[in-house]
Amino acid sequence: MAVEELFRHIESKRERYLGFLKRLVEQPSVSATGEGIEECASQVAELLEEVGIRADIYRDHGGNPVVFGEIQAEAHATLMFYNHYDVQPPEPLDKWLSPPFTLAARNGKLYGRGAADNKGNIAARIAAVDSLLDTLGETPVNVKFLIEGEEEIGSPTLEKFCELHSDLLFADGCVWEYGYRNRAERPVIYLGVKGILYVELEAHGAATDLHSSWGCVVENPAWRLVKLLNTIRGDDGTILIDGFYDDVEKPGEELLSLLDDIDPAEVDVKELFGAEITVGGKRGKDALRALLLEPAVNICGIIAGYTGAGSKTVLPSRASTKLDFRLVPRQEPLDIFRKLENHIKKHGFTDISLNMVQGYPAARTAPDSPFVAAVAETARVAYGVEPVLYPSGAGSGPMYVITERLGIPCVSTGVGYPGSLAHAPNENIREQDFIAGIKHMALLMIRLHQYLH
Amino acid sequence: MAVEELFRHIESKRERYLGFLKRLVEQPSVSATGEGIEECASQVAELLEEVGIRADIYRDHGGNPVVFGEIQAEAHATLMFYNHYDVQPPEPLDKWLSPPFTLAARNGKLYGRGAADNKGNIAARIAAVDSLLDTLGETPVNVKFLIEGEEEIGSPTLEKFCELHSDLLFADGCVWEYGYRNRAERPVIYLGVKGILYVELEAHGAATDLHSSWGCVVENPAWRLVKLLNTIRGDDGTILIDGFYDDVEKPGEELLSLLDDIDPAEVDVKELFGAEITVGGKRGKDALRALLLEPAVNICGIIAGYTGAGSKTVLPSRASTKLDFRLVPRQEPLDIFRKLENHIKKHGFTDISLNMVQGYPAARTAPDSPFVAAVAETARVAYGVEPVLYPSGAGSGPMYVITERLGIPCVSTGVGYPGSLAHAPNENIREQDFIAGIKHMALLMIRLHQYLH
Repeated sequence: MAVEELFRHIESKRERYLGFLKRLVEQPSVSATGEGIEECASQVAELLEEVGIRADIYRDHGGNPVVFGEIQAEAHATLMFYNHYDVQPPEPLDKWLSPPFTLAARNGKLYGRGAADNKGNIAARIAAVDSLLDTLGETPVNVKFLIEGEEEIGSPTLEKFCELHSDLLFADGCVWEYGYRNRAERPVIYLGVKGILYVELEAHGAATDLHSSWGCVVENPAWRLVKLLNTIRGDDGTILIDGFYDDVEKPGEELLSLLDDIDPAEVDVKELFGAEITVGGKRGKDALRALLLEPAVNICGIIAGYTGAGSKTVLPSRASTKLDFRLVPRQEPLDIFRKLENHIKKHGFTDISLNMVQGYPAARTAPDSPFVAAVAETARVAYGVEPVLYPSGAGSGPMYVITERLGIPCVSTGVGYPGSLAHAPNENIREQDFIAGIKHMALLMIRLHQYLH
Repeated sequence: MAVEELFRHIESKRERYLGFLKRLVEQPSVSATGEGIEECASQVAELLEEVGIRADIYRDHGGNPVVFGEIQAEAHATLMFYNHYDVQPPEPLDKWLSPPFTLAARNGKLYGRGAADNKGNIAARIAAVDSLLDTLGETPVNVKFLIEGEEEIGSPTLEKFCELHSDLLFADGCVWEYGYRNRAERPVIYLGVKGILYVELEAHGAATDLHSSWGCVVENPAWRLVKLLNTIRGDDGTILIDGFYDDVEKPGEELLSLLDDIDPAEVDVKELFGAEITVGGKRGKDALRALLLEPAVNICGIIAGYTGAGSKTVLPSRASTKLDFRLVPRQEPLDIFRKLENHIKKHGFTDISLNMVQGYPAARTAPDSPFVAAVAETARVAYGVEPVLYPSGAGSGPMYVITERLGIPCVSTGVGYPGSLAHAPNENIREQDFIAGIKHMALLMIRLHQYLH
C-alpha cells in the first residue's frame, strides 16, 4: 500500500479517531484522588478490544490497574507503546474555558484534561493500529500496549508490574508516552529521560516553638537547614556531595552533536519565563546541555516558622525542605541517597533527618540505534519536516523500566505542541498534530522491520 | 507610717485590689484585632479616676488611645509607670481551662488573658497608689501612668505620643511593664531590654512557578535565599555583616558581674526546652551573656515552593524569609538596615528585595543608677528575699522611648512567675505575687526621694 493511500485513509477516519479521544477524555481518571481510575482502565480496555487488540487488565502488581493490549501478528518485529491513562487533577476549575472532562473543539484545537498528557497519544496509537487493520487487515508488526494508571503519581508499581510480567513485555522497540512539535513545527523525538531522587530533610530544634529572643542561645533549625543546604550546592549549580558525579557518563560527541540541531530559543529562559538569572550563567548551547544532559539539585519547597503577613518573633522548632536531584545515566538513586546521607553525617548535621520520597534512574537509547532511525525517518515522512532528536528530555519518567530493566530501545514522541498546557488548565492539542501522530505511528508499524533486520 | 502597717493595710484591701484586676481582665482588649480596645482604655481611665488619679485619654498620636494618669503631689520626686492595656489574642480557645476573659481563681492563682501581661501590673500599681492615698492621704511622690494600647503589636505610635507630649513625661525614674519571680522566688529586676530590627527578604526568580526540571538552567530563588542567608550568619552565630558590631558597647565589669548572681538553670535550654544544640556551643554563663547582652539574628520564618505532603517537582518563582536582629545598646536599627542593604549588594544578591517591618533600639539603665538601688532595695523589703538584677531582658520592647528619648532611668519588674504563660492559654499570676507587687510599688513611692536627693 502506498503511503499516500494510508494517510488518506487516516484522514477519512478523522471523526472516528476523534471519537476515541473524546471517549477517553470524557472519562475522568485522576490518580491523585482515585477519581474514575477503575472506569478509565475499563474504558481503555474496551476501546482496544473494539479496534481488535486483545486487552487484559492486570492488578496483581498492587497498584492502579494496568491495561495490557496485544496483537500477535506473527511478525518478525514487535513494537510496544507505553502510555498512561491517568491524568493530573483538573484544578483550578475556574481557569478552564470549557469543562475539563468534556472534549471541546475550538479553532482547530481539542481541549480537555489529558488531551496532551496522555490520552491524545493513547487515542492516536490505537487509531494507528485501527487504520492498519482497516487497510491491510493486519498489523505488519506484533503490537503491545502497556498502559498504566499511576504515571502522574510517580509510577510507584510499574517496575513491579514489569517484573511480574516480563514474559509479556518483549519488544524490539518502545514508543514512550509524550512528545510535541517544536516552535518550528519539527516533531521532537527524545532518546531518554532523566532519573530522579526526591528527598525530604527536616531539621529539629527545641521541643516547641520559642520566643525568638532565645535565638541567641538555642540553635534555630532553619539556620541549620540553610547551612546544610549551602554545603550541598555551589553557586554555579555544582553538587558538592562526595562522589555525586562518580557514575555520570560523560556524553559522547554523538550525543553532544544533537544539541547543535536544537533551537537555542528553547532554553531562552528570559524570553520564555522572564528569568533573569541562569544557573552558573549558562545560556544557549551550555544551557541546553545542562537542561538535557547534566544532573542538578533543586529546592522544590522549604518551610519553617511564621510565614504570614507582618511580623511574628518566633524561633521555630522544625524546618523542612524538599529537594529533587535530576539524575543522568548510570547514576543510581539509592547510591545518591547513601552519598547524601554520608554528606549530612560528614558535615555534622545529625540533627537533620533525611527521608527518600521517590527515586528512579535515568534512561537513554543510543542515537545510532536502528529503532531511533526508524522512528525519526517515519516522522520525517508523516510530518513532512525534519524531526529533531533530543538526547534526553529535561524531565524524568520511569522509562528505565523499559530501557534498563527490559533492555528495550525506547524513544518518546507524541501529539503535543508548545501551547499544549499539560498539567495546566485548558490543556489541548491541535487536531492536525493528532492526525499527523496517527500517520507517524502507522507508518512506523509498516516500516519498522526494515530497520531491525 | 511603719512599713508593717502599710503592708497590713494592703493585705486588708486584697478583695478591693483583686476587683481592680477582675475589671481589667474581664474587658477584652486585643490590639491584633481591635476587639475592646476603646472600651478598655475607658475602663483604665475610670479605674485611675476612681482611685483619685487624674486621667486623660489621648488620641492625637494616631494610634490606639493612650491613657495618661497623674497625681501632682508637689513632691520633689516623680515616678512613672509604663504599662499597656492591650493583650495578645486568646486563641487557641480550646486550651483554656476557664474562659480567657473571666478572672478565675484556682489554687492561689488568678487566670485570665492579661493577668500577667500586663493587666496584673496595671492593677498592682494602681492599688499601690490607692493604698498610699488611703493611709497617708497623699502619695509621697508625683505619680504618672503611661498606659498604651499597642504594645502587643509593636508599639508603632508610642514614640510619636512621647514626642507630642514630652512636656507631660518628665520623671526621675520609670518602672517598665513586666517582671517575674525566678525559680528561687527572687524578684527579677531588668535594667534594660534589647532592640530589634525585623526585616523581610524576598528572592525573585521566573515569572511563574516552573516544572523543576528547569532547575538545571533557571536559578531557583530558594537557592539564592539560602546562599544569601548563609553569608549573614556564621556557624557560631556571629553576624557577618560588615560593621554590624561597630557600635556595640562592650559590657563593662559592673554589668558582667551581674551575671554571676543569675541562676544558670535559667538558660539550661536542654532542661527547659529539650534543645540539643546551642548557638556556638554556649552554655552556662556564656549562654546567659549571649541571651542578655549580645546581638543575634534569627530566622523567624522561611517559605518557598511546595510544602504539603508527598512530592511535587516545582521550581518556585519566589522565596521569602523573615529575620529578626536582636540589638544591644548603641546599635541603631536604621543603621543596621543600611548595613544589611550594603551586604546584600556587596554579595551580588540584587535579585533579593529587602523590607523593614519594624525596628527600635535597645535600652539600658546603669546598674549604679540611684533609681536601680531604690527599686532593688524596696524589692528586698517587700518580697523578703534578695532581688536579682538582670543587665537586660532577652526580649525587646520600646523602653528606648523612656531611656534614650526622654532620658529617664527605667527598670522592669512585675508580678509574674516562671509559670505565668504570658501570650499562651491559661495565662496566670499567683495571688501572693500580686500582693507582693503592690507592696513593692507602694514602698518604692514612699522611699524613692531618699535615693534621688
